[in-house]
Amino acid sequence: MPYTYEYPHPAVTVDGVVFGYDEADLKVLLIQRDQPPYRGKWALPGGFVDMNESLEAAARRELEEETGVTELYLEQLYTFGEPKRDPRERVISVAYYALVKLADHTVRAASDARNVAWFPVANLPALAFDHEEILDVALRRLKGKIRYEPIGFELLPEKFPLSELQRLYETILEQPLDKRNFRKKILSMGLLADTEEIQQDVAHRAARLYRFDEPSYRRLKKAGFNFEL
Amino acid sequence: MPYTYEYPHPAVTVDGVVFGYDEADLKVLLIQRDQPPYRGKWALPGGFVDMNESLEAAARRELEEETGVTELYLEQLYTFGEPKRDPRERVISVAYYALVKLADHTVRAASDARNVAWFPVANLPALAFDHEEILDVALRRLKGKIRYEPIGFELLPEKFPLSELQRLYETILEQPLDKRNFRKKILSMGLLADTEEIQQDVAHRAARLYRFDEPSYRRLKKAGFNFEL
Repeated sequence: MPYTYEYPHPAVTVDGVVFGYDEADLKVLLIQRDQPPYRGKWALPGGFVDMNESLEAAARRELEEETGVTELYLEQLYTFGEPKRDPRERVISVAYYALVKLADHTVRAASDARNVAWFPVANLPALAFDHEEILDVALRRLKGKIRYEPIGFELLPEKFPLSELQRLYETILEQPLDKRNFRKKILSMGLLADTEEIQQDVAHRAARLYRFDEPSYRRLKKAGFNFEL
Repeated sequence: MPYTYEYPHPAVTVDGVVFGYDEADLKVLLIQRDQPPYRGKWALPGGFVDMNESLEAAARRELEEETGVTELYLEQLYTFGEPKRDPRERVISVAYYALVKLADHTVRAASDARNVAWFPVANLPALAFDHEEILDVALRRLKGKIRYEPIGFELLPEKFPLSELQRLYETILEQPLDKRNFRKKILSMGLLADTEEIQQDVAHRAARLYRFDEPSYRRLKKAGFNFEL
């Protein structure tokens, strides 16, 4: 059944940039397209917004349909609307992003996705549409965010040595950080609580384990902080 | 001539939040609607995206058509897409914002705008659609931004006393700042250059005049900083 309008209308899609963190590797969730255009190409999961759902609900639904991933904390990233970005018609895409602990999410391809996989951000295939640009914007956002908001609660195990949090920062920032400086700064923020336990599974020099102090983490997430690197 | 699609399509608009700064007052540019819905109500300037223009170009065009304002540095703010936000049909709106020196822009209403005016942010009329929410998001963004990016180059006269820059910060943040702390922090950033001149038009206690060091300002704008308040 065709839909008729007095003026031309663009189509609107949502795309999801889901970053996963896993053994000091930053990965992104991609699907292999099973429909034209770009059939067989890897792309960000996403699809058309239904007329009666919000943009975030659409992003959530498409992610679940195509990749099986649910229960994400999605944030709106940016809206991409260059007139020729999709060969089918004028398509404006609202991109969302999320950061997850990779081990918590089982993925399975379905709907328009032939395949689904986590790719290391440092080693990606060519992507369909302008999805490389969308991913670039998401990576820049993540690098900016880490400087004025705590990060890691959703990504690290419950108890972790400081070296693991430092590695998360270094992975996202793609640069080494000075160990002493990092410890000093991160501890001064009141973000972490000492568990008074040490690592159990290491042969020597077992490190002290920390956990995020959840109320303080939430408060700093809301109020923002300044983590000068 | 009607346009026909196999699936329903939303309409897409752009809305512009233009903040103006003027004698320690933060204002926002509003138009009075001359067309239904919300005819006669005040609203953010904006309108439908043409099929062959980018989103930013659409925002720029609508601002010029409805308010006469040109040559803005626009940044994308957020995309608003709740299904019922517009009584006409499903309308998704991509909002942009800009910060200008009010004196630099002459406004005149045209197109769908019956009237155009700068309103103090602290004293606004009721707005059409979800435009109060859009404005709230813009104000929050501005307050966040001021903490990790320099601000003021586009808003202050070429030479200004530090008190004027402090007043700009206080206006945007809606809170008083400690004078000594502010001076110390802002001067330590290497953002300002001493003009070695003093105010000419004051009876006594003429203050030293500063200017933004443009290369340093541009560099800090790009790299970001941490201005703890």
